[in-house]
Amino acid sequence: MKLFTVGPVACYPEVLEVMKQQMYSHRSIEYKRLHRETVEFLQSFLETEAHIYLFSSTGTGFMEGAVRNCVNKKILCCINGSFGKRFAEVAVLNGKIVETIEPPLGEPISPDVLDEKLSKCPDVEAVSITHNETSTGLINPLSKLADVVKKHGKLLLVDAVSSMGGTDIKVDKWGIDVCFSSSQKCFGVPPGLGIGSVSKEALKKSETVQNPGWYFNFKIWEKYHKRNSTPMTSTIPQIAGLNQILKTIDELGGKEKFFEVHRKRNRIIRNEIQKQGLSIFPKKGYESPTLSCINTPNNVDGITIYEKMREKGFELAKGYGNLKNTTFRIGNMGYIEFQDITAMLEVLNEVRQDCGW
Amino acid sequence: MKLFTVGPVACYPEVLEVMKQQMYSHRSIEYKRLHRETVEFLQSFLETEAHIYLFSSTGTGFMEGAVRNCVNKKILCCINGSFGKRFAEVAVLNGKIVETIEPPLGEPISPDVLDEKLSKCPDVEAVSITHNETSTGLINPLSKLADVVKKHGKLLLVDAVSSMGGTDIKVDKWGIDVCFSSSQKCFGVPPGLGIGSVSKEALKKSETVQNPGWYFNFKIWEKYHKRNSTPMTSTIPQIAGLNQILKTIDELGGKEKFFEVHRKRNRIIRNEIQKQGLSIFPKKGYESPTLSCINTPNNVDGITIYEKMREKGFELAKGYGNLKNTTFRIGNMGYIEFQDITAMLEVLNEVRQDCGW
Repeated sequence: MKLFTVGPVACYPEVLEVMKQQMYSHRSIEYKRLHRETVEFLQSFLETEAHIYLFSSTGTGFMEGAVRNCVNKKILCCINGSFGKRFAEVAVLNGKIVETIEPPLGEPISPDVLDEKLSKCPDVEAVSITHNETSTGLINPLSKLADVVKKHGKLLLVDAVSSMGGTDIKVDKWGIDVCFSSSQKCFGVPPGLGIGSVSKEALKKSETVQNPGWYFNFKIWEKYHKRNSTPMTSTIPQIAGLNQILKTIDELGGKEKFFEVHRKRNRIIRNEIQKQGLSIFPKKGYESPTLSCINTPNNVDGITIYEKMREKGFELAKGYGNLKNTTFRIGNMGYIEFQDITAMLEVLNEVRQDCGW
Repeated sequence: MKLFTVGPVACYPEVLEVMKQQMYSHRSIEYKRLHRETVEFLQSFLETEAHIYLFSSTGTGFMEGAVRNCVNKKILCCINGSFGKRFAEVAVLNGKIVETIEPPLGEPISPDVLDEKLSKCPDVEAVSITHNETSTGLINPLSKLADVVKKHGKLLLVDAVSSMGGTDIKVDKWGIDVCFSSSQKCFGVPPGLGIGSVSKEALKKSETVQNPGWYFNFKIWEKYHKRNSTPMTSTIPQIAGLNQILKTIDELGGKEKFFEVHRKRNRIIRNEIQKQGLSIFPKKGYESPTLSCINTPNNVDGITIYEKMREKGFELAKGYGNLKNTTFRIGNMGYIEFQDITAMLEVLNEVRQDCGW
């Protein structure tokens, strides 16, 4: 089965190779070396001096951590789909008051609307933004939105789950306070690792919030960060896998080369999709560079296309949430060879002929 | 390096083999099959009809989940060392009021003392017990303590991190409401997976608590349990590894055979230790079957023994917390061959001669 999923994605062969390594103590000098090196790679990748924590969790764990450490009472959640909604749900279930901005599905957050909203709600402590909304295949204009958040002096919490590694994020320049992702997306590593940067301001805020919990407690993480380790047992295989792919990216010539690979895969898929008479769901100019959310033709539903492709050896992704039947998605993250893209698109053309769109 | 650590421990070869498998979607039928099979194996292993959740976290994540879902205001924490203390810290940082029982280090929780304490604090909602305290190498008389907790009608939350898989736990018979462990201990799987059972009573309580959060929310987990999946992306490699070792145990002839292997390793180590003039830290009759916490001789500290053994190719575990210098520990969990135990004990004898105890 060739994977064009949106996570977990197919892992790079050199990553799978390190996944089978025998374990060792997470308090050993070997682990500390691995930890420090991985953190330094990520700081360089994200252009930040902020500390990087490697959570034994998925990205949603980091989301819960961001909420619990950076918000005492009130947060503004920008929602473009299911994962933006999740940020708001996480906040509510952690006892926070949530304000929202929620444009129609497929449209980005507008910097002007955000500016106006923040003027009306001066008491929010932090703003959450989904950089790349996996459910609708939309990317937000993050640097512009960040400018607005910083103008209002709020903490900025960014879900970069399906963008980190696939497109550039300049954490310090843009002023992101918490920027998190997961191992199983653009980095092409198996799931189980939450990766994120935590600014000095976020850390300062975490010292005053009530009930931050233990597991995702930034103060506790900071203490272990200084020891090149983690408070609980580190998810060693996935950290070793992440370390490996960061080395590969370095050898490839740096992150820009890696982003270019993602853009090229995405361009090929999007061009061919349109030739096959299909259209992209999100508004023009805001299409995600790491996955394509595609409107199904009138007479066919998304699940049918997903299942027919699967029968032929290609696993795409179903539509998500409200878009379950009216879209399907093709991811271009992780280990994908260009010849497999060609093969997948040929098979999609066969499915088109079968379905008669 | 041969590992006699207390976690992460050396993983079984067949487990490492599956760790390198290519990923696939956690919403696919293949994953659902793996999930259901693993859950059913664990239900049989723990002799329970309670639902099993597979958290993308370590055991401490399950600890935080137990506290947030089962305690609204007040918990009684039984403390025998660092990990019992962690349960109390987790509760405090999640805004709960904590009562404690804390006998001197090395002594178990007494059922009578627990009974008396619960009579004095009828308003606690749950009792936490560390089944096997990894920091002191002590095992508590869990079934007797469980009887007392049940007599008082309280929820029973058990940290079985270093006991599950190494010694028997009868979840339903003993009335344990939340019984959790980690992948990287007796099951000999890499870290990153929290494993736990959640009783109907615990689930019922979770429906009434305030601020249960999202990530470890039992109500959300229950919804996905019914779909043979997890709310967030499943830690697929470790779950596949756990599935593999549970199959191995089955082929070995069942859990009793696996426990016997642990007991035998432990017996060999403990006998030889005593021949070498060393004594076991915890009170007689309460020695852990999965690790030995050993008093250092008067003239040598624990770190020295740890380091000398490491130089010779054997990684034991340092003393922990208050016992850092006055003890060292030898784990007998995970992938350990009997010939390696013999070799390790011979080398320890050389270290004894070097140090002159």
